[in-house]
Amino acid sequence: MTAAAAAGGPVAVVGAGLIGTSIALALRDVGRRVLLADRDPARVALAADLGAGERWDGVEPVDHAVLAVPPAAVAGELVALQRKELAATYSDVASVKVAPQCQAAAAGADLASYCGGHPIAGRERGGPAAARADLFLGRPWVLTPEPVTGTAARDAAAAVAQACGAIVVEMSPAEHDRALGLVSHVPQLVASLLAARLLAAPESAVSLAGPGFRDTTRIAASDPALWGEVIAANPGPVLAVLEDFAADLDVLLAALRPASGGAPATGDVPGAGPVGRVPTAVADAVRRGNEGRSRLPGKHGVRAAGYATVPVVVEDAPGRLARLFADAEVAGVNIEDIGIEHAPGRPVGVVELAVRPDGVPRLLAVLSARGWAVHAPAP
Amino acid sequence: MTAAAAAGGPVAVVGAGLIGTSIALALRDVGRRVLLADRDPARVALAADLGAGERWDGVEPVDHAVLAVPPAAVAGELVALQRKELAATYSDVASVKVAPQCQAAAAGADLASYCGGHPIAGRERGGPAAARADLFLGRPWVLTPEPVTGTAARDAAAAVAQACGAIVVEMSPAEHDRALGLVSHVPQLVASLLAARLLAAPESAVSLAGPGFRDTTRIAASDPALWGEVIAANPGPVLAVLEDFAADLDVLLAALRPASGGAPATGDVPGAGPVGRVPTAVADAVRRGNEGRSRLPGKHGVRAAGYATVPVVVEDAPGRLARLFADAEVAGVNIEDIGIEHAPGRPVGVVELAVRPDGVPRLLAVLSARGWAVHAPAP
Repeated sequence: MTAAAAAGGPVAVVGAGLIGTSIALALRDVGRRVLLADRDPARVALAADLGAGERWDGVEPVDHAVLAVPPAAVAGELVALQRKELAATYSDVASVKVAPQCQAAAAGADLASYCGGHPIAGRERGGPAAARADLFLGRPWVLTPEPVTGTAARDAAAAVAQACGAIVVEMSPAEHDRALGLVSHVPQLVASLLAARLLAAPESAVSLAGPGFRDTTRIAASDPALWGEVIAANPGPVLAVLEDFAADLDVLLAALRPASGGAPATGDVPGAGPVGRVPTAVADAVRRGNEGRSRLPGKHGVRAAGYATVPVVVEDAPGRLARLFADAEVAGVNIEDIGIEHAPGRPVGVVELAVRPDGVPRLLAVLSARGWAVHAPAP
Repeated sequence: MTAAAAAGGPVAVVGAGLIGTSIALALRDVGRRVLLADRDPARVALAADLGAGERWDGVEPVDHAVLAVPPAAVAGELVALQRKELAATYSDVASVKVAPQCQAAAAGADLASYCGGHPIAGRERGGPAAARADLFLGRPWVLTPEPVTGTAARDAAAAVAQACGAIVVEMSPAEHDRALGLVSHVPQLVASLLAARLLAAPESAVSLAGPGFRDTTRIAASDPALWGEVIAANPGPVLAVLEDFAADLDVLLAALRPASGGAPATGDVPGAGPVGRVPTAVADAVRRGNEGRSRLPGKHGVRAAGYATVPVVVEDAPGRLARLFADAEVAGVNIEDIGIEHAPGRPVGVVELAVRPDGVPRLLAVLSARGWAVHAPAP
C-alpha cells in the first residue's frame, strides 16, 4: 500500500455501474473519500444518493483511479486520465485482461502506473441501483500485474480489493482470460442458449419449468450488449472451451439418435430403441458433471467429496442447534459443513453434519448417547 | 375424491426417497395415515423418524398406493401390488409417463385403477433426509389419465397432489414427456456437460468459479444412474430439443472461429479478427436467452422469500460454529437456514444465517457485542 493510500487519500471511480458503485460503497465504508465519474450524470447522481461518494469534477487529482468501464473503453480512459495527470496510479475491473492491456500499450499508456484487475463477482442485474458494498466480500479479485507494472500501482489496486473484503489473487493476463472463458464466458453462452429453447415452446411446457431450469438459466437474464463485448474481447479461450463442450454434446446426440441401418450399440435390444446405449452415455455425462462440480471451491453442499453426511433429526426451536454443536464438540469431531433441511413452521428438521469419515462412529456414539435422533450416513 | 379418501383411509407410499418421503410428510400434515415401504429398510426407518408415517407390512390393504419408484420400476410394482389386491387405486410420480404406462399395459396391469402422475418438483439431492412437506407447495403436479383411467383412480391421485399443496394439471403422457424433455431433461444434460468442463481445468481457474457457475451447474450434482434411466425412457423428445440447442451452438462456434480463407463476415475489419461478427452473434444469443427466460412463470420459490440473510465472517476451526450458534441463541432468534461460503485459500469463511427480518437487529446487536464480524443483510 502506498503511503498516500494508507493515509486514505481520495480514490476516483470512473464508471458508476454495478461494479464501480459497489466498489465505491465499500471504499466509503472503510472511510475513503470517493469521487465518481460516468458518461451518464444520472448514474453518478444515483450512486451519490446511495452514499457511494461525490461527483468528480475531473480536475481534482486523486491518489488512485479505478476504471470501472467496459473492456473496450479501458485503454482510452486510461490514456485520457494519464494525459491530464489526474491520478498517481490506476487500475481497472474489466472482465477480460489481455485485450485492454494490449490496447493500452498500443495507445501509449504509461503502464508503470497501471495494474489490471478483475473482481470475480457480479449479478445478472446491472446499474448503480443493484450495487452493494458486500458484493466482493470473500470473493477472489484477480490482479494481473506485468513486469512493467510499478509497485505503487500494484499496491494501490490491492488496497482497493482489500477494502472491498475481496481476496487478492495474482495471475498473468492470459491465464486470467483462459480461466474466465471457462468459469464465466462459456457458462453465460450455454445458459443463454438453453433459455432460448423456451422461445418456441408451448405455454403448457413453459409452465412446468421449475427451480432447476430457473437456476440453470439465471444468468441468461444478463445484458446482451455487454456480453457481446466481453466475449468479443476473449474469443480464443471461449472458442476452445466451447469446442470441447460441443464435442461432449456430440457424444450424447450420437447415443440418443436411433441407430437405424447400423448395428445396435452394445446392450441395445433390437426394436426396443437404444435402451442400453442411452442410459450409459447419459449416466457417464452426469457422472462427469458430478466430478467436475465437486471441484468447485469451498465446502459447499454437504455432498462435498471426502466427507460423510450424518443426518440428525432436530426440533425446530431456538437453542437446539447450539446444543447439537456443543454435543458434537464433546465428540471432538470437526464439523466441515452443515445443511439444514426443514420447512418453515414444521416441528422437526434434519441437520446434516458433514464430517471426515473416520469421525463418524464417535459422532454417532456421542450424539446418540446424548439423546439425539442421529442416523448413519447414507452409503 | 372417493368416499374412502375423503374419510382419510390409509395411503401407502412405496419408495421412501426424496419424493416419496416428501409426499408422505405432506399427507401426514393433513391427517392421513401413511404406510411406508422401500427395498431399503434404513430409508423407511429414517422417514418414520421424520414423522412421515409407519412401516408397511405389505399385508394391510390401503385406499391408495403412491408408487414413488424410478420410471423403470413403476409397471412391475403396479402389477405386483394389484395381484395382491393391496390398494383400491394407484398412482405414480415418475418423471416420464409414456414408457411406464406402455410397460404397465404390456405387463397386464389393470389400467382402470391406475392414474399416472408427476409432481414437478425436486432437488439435486435424493433420499429421505432431503424430504420436506412443502416440496410441492404451489408447484404443478401433472396427471396423465388416459381414456381407460377410472374416475376413482384419477380423483385419488388428484387428492394426493392437493394434499401436497400442488396445482393439478392434466396432459397426455406424450405432451408431458415433450414438455419435460425441454424444461428438465435437456437442462440436466447441459448443466452436466458444463460442469464436466472443470475436470481438466487448472486449479487456478476452478478457484474463480462464482455464483453464476454454481447456479448454472447446481443440478449437475444429480444422480447419474437415475438420470440415465429417466432420459433413456424419453429419448425422442430429449433428442429433438438437444438437436435444436446444438444448431444454435453451431452458429456461435462459427462466429467465434477465425474466418481464415473465407470472406470476413459483415462488420469485420480485415486483419483485426472477427470484431463485428462475434459481438453480434453473442448479443443475439444472449438476447434470445433474455426473451426465452422472460417466459418463465411467476417468481421464485417460497424458501428465499421472507428471510433475511445475515453474513458472519467465521474462522474455519473446531468449535467456532458451536460458539456462533450458542451466541445466536442468546439473541433468541431462530436460524431458519444456513449457508457457508469459503474463500479459496483463506482460513475464514462467511456463514450466512437466514432469519426472520424482525430478528435481524437483535441478532446483529448480540453477535457484534460478542465479537463476531457480522454484517447487515443486503436489502
